[in-house]
Amino acid sequence: MKQIEGGVCAAKGFTAAGVHCGIRKNRSKKDLALIYSAVPAAAAAVYTTNLVKGAPLAVTKAHLQNGRAQAVICNSGNANTCNANGVEIAEQTCALAAGALGIAPEDVVVASTGVIGQPLDIAPIAAGIPPLCAALSADGGDDAAEGIMTTDTVKKEAAVEFTLGGKVCRIGGMAKGSGMIHPNMATMLVFLTTDAAVSPAMLQRVLSADAADTFNMISIDGDTSTNDMVTVLANGMAGNAEITAEGEDCAAFAAALNAVTTALCRAIAGDGEGATKLLECRVDGAPDTATAKTVAKSVICSSLLKAAMFGADANWGRVLCAIGYSGAAVDVDRIDVAFTSAAGTVRVCRGGAGVDFSEEKAKEILLCGEIGILVSLNAGEASATAWGCDLTYDYVRINGDYRT
Amino acid sequence: MKQIEGGVCAAKGFTAAGVHCGIRKNRSKKDLALIYSAVPAAAAAVYTTNLVKGAPLAVTKAHLQNGRAQAVICNSGNANTCNANGVEIAEQTCALAAGALGIAPEDVVVASTGVIGQPLDIAPIAAGIPPLCAALSADGGDDAAEGIMTTDTVKKEAAVEFTLGGKVCRIGGMAKGSGMIHPNMATMLVFLTTDAAVSPAMLQRVLSADAADTFNMISIDGDTSTNDMVTVLANGMAGNAEITAEGEDCAAFAAALNAVTTALCRAIAGDGEGATKLLECRVDGAPDTATAKTVAKSVICSSLLKAAMFGADANWGRVLCAIGYSGAAVDVDRIDVAFTSAAGTVRVCRGGAGVDFSEEKAKEILLCGEIGILVSLNAGEASATAWGCDLTYDYVRINGDYRT
Repeated sequence: MKQIEGGVCAAKGFTAAGVHCGIRKNRSKKDLALIYSAVPAAAAAVYTTNLVKGAPLAVTKAHLQNGRAQAVICNSGNANTCNANGVEIAEQTCALAAGALGIAPEDVVVASTGVIGQPLDIAPIAAGIPPLCAALSADGGDDAAEGIMTTDTVKKEAAVEFTLGGKVCRIGGMAKGSGMIHPNMATMLVFLTTDAAVSPAMLQRVLSADAADTFNMISIDGDTSTNDMVTVLANGMAGNAEITAEGEDCAAFAAALNAVTTALCRAIAGDGEGATKLLECRVDGAPDTATAKTVAKSVICSSLLKAAMFGADANWGRVLCAIGYSGAAVDVDRIDVAFTSAAGTVRVCRGGAGVDFSEEKAKEILLCGEIGILVSLNAGEASATAWGCDLTYDYVRINGDYRT
Repeated sequence: MKQIEGGVCAAKGFTAAGVHCGIRKNRSKKDLALIYSAVPAAAAAVYTTNLVKGAPLAVTKAHLQNGRAQAVICNSGNANTCNANGVEIAEQTCALAAGALGIAPEDVVVASTGVIGQPLDIAPIAAGIPPLCAALSADGGDDAAEGIMTTDTVKKEAAVEFTLGGKVCRIGGMAKGSGMIHPNMATMLVFLTTDAAVSPAMLQRVLSADAADTFNMISIDGDTSTNDMVTVLANGMAGNAEITAEGEDCAAFAAALNAVTTALCRAIAGDGEGATKLLECRVDGAPDTATAKTVAKSVICSSLLKAAMFGADANWGRVLCAIGYSGAAVDVDRIDVAFTSAAGTVRVCRGGAGVDFSEEKAKEILLCGEIGILVSLNAGEASATAWGCDLTYDYVRINGDYRT
């Protein structure tokens, strides 16, 4: 397996585009993105568990019932959630895109991200779809990734190449992250494409399993969005024997998918709203995976720890505090904690109590852009990783006047 | 029932004091507080559910097994948590205070608040106890309230006077709040005193029931501290017939206690770390109290909503989002939301969808210091209230370099 360029267009047969259609006031910001597969593809998705769900999710869920799709359309600037006519608008969007592409509306996946509770006008979308379709290109992955950004500061793309039964396959993806991110089942918006041939049922199974270890292990701010969705399209154009069951090919595909989703997770967490640092909490020595995940996620969610990381303060008591209230059954007196980064590693707690450490060295470690928080429970063999970011002035600034 | 002055010294027979003993570097900050009852008192307490517990909690729990206590000693500046010799230090503190007061060490309640994981030296405490005991006075409530402050910006005291069987009784209290506050079972540190006669068992029952509706409904930052504790001493000096069972007297006592604890809750939430505003979420029309509480607390905990309130932005979609991920079974299409304050009330959502409202009026309402977030589920008769505060630059500043 190797990393490649191209994002959602890395896999054979996929083209993409992104344009400004007018949902956002700022004309320099793209607000409509399209991904298109030359042939119908197997499709799977996972969605937010929030009871308040964006209208596009309901429409996408209905469209994916047959496990097939050929295009994905997504707007930014408006979440199309808590709107009386939201479903109607989402369906119109699919119909307009389908008409322009010459495919069935049911083969279109639709997604939206932005403000909740403001009516979404179909006019700019209707006007934007013709130029959007005209712009579709194998080089359009970047534009599409730009079209789904809200408070994101960087585009988030990843892709890998791997082989299945001697056939070269690719998986690529793009993501929209930043705020209201504490996925539970899925995350923000992630669009994955592959030219591997995978049956819809296996695609769903691999995606669901992967999301539990990747997107569901991110938290930016503890807020599970109404519009979270991860979707994958597999068009089979790589020519491999279709994956229809567990086995070697399925494992190779799952590993390749995981490489892409993990890269996107790190990109999403590192670009959390206002973030200056990517935090990665690795928990090992847990009695089971569920415990490891609970602990890792609790640490990554602690506002106090996040603020301490912003300040490069090795306040490890906040790590223990977050483990203690996580709900996991842990033996506090066995817990070891260390901080690590490109600048080195410092052990700060052993057996639940502090150890002498150099504050100077700790500061140096915590001033790096990627911080590892290493927790050993010393109570078993299971492990888990969660990703988050620091809590900064800019998070407050961004969310203090998001709508204005 | 009427509000009175005096805090923990409002009730007959209670004296208090607060001094600087040297745990904190800043000599102008008091760091040791004492409450003393002229006669032994019935005592009850509720504690944090965090598995990582401060050593003082273990010692206090042991001391309160007989339901009796006569003094409370509390230091700030160090939480005495995750320290190898923590229990020893807490026991020494009790023994030193008991010696100076001429009572049994088992009749002393001990508490600590401050940084986790830094050894607590007994020397400043040993040196501070004699002047602390010498300073005990019926006017000492303020000094004691000052002695337990960490990042609190204001002292938090409350007291009421009420009658039981013709006897005038009083309940007073003080609290330490600010950060790492998301109580679960108890809260930060709250010390309550009353001259009413109440049996230890009834005192515990009334306190536990009250904490579930008051302190457990506050969140500053979602972090359940390792040292949360609420304790109440009832010395019986008002001369009422001892309350030993449910009934009219018990209800009157519980109502008086609730008046004090609610006032302290509002004070704690309004003085959350960095807070500029007190948020009060009132949920009604719930099918049951548990649902109402879950919804109210989820709203008050949303980082996104807290930041929006800081920015006086009527971003009600974040209220719905927080309700949706709360875990409560709600019918989204029945939810109404309004914002209220001294400047008026504005309805922003009806039946799960937005309604037209004046952004100008909403801004005016949200610029006030106390904001009500009114949620109607329109699905029953139960209600609940939760308290929190806005998320501000200062929260990040305070917690970015807490230890330095």
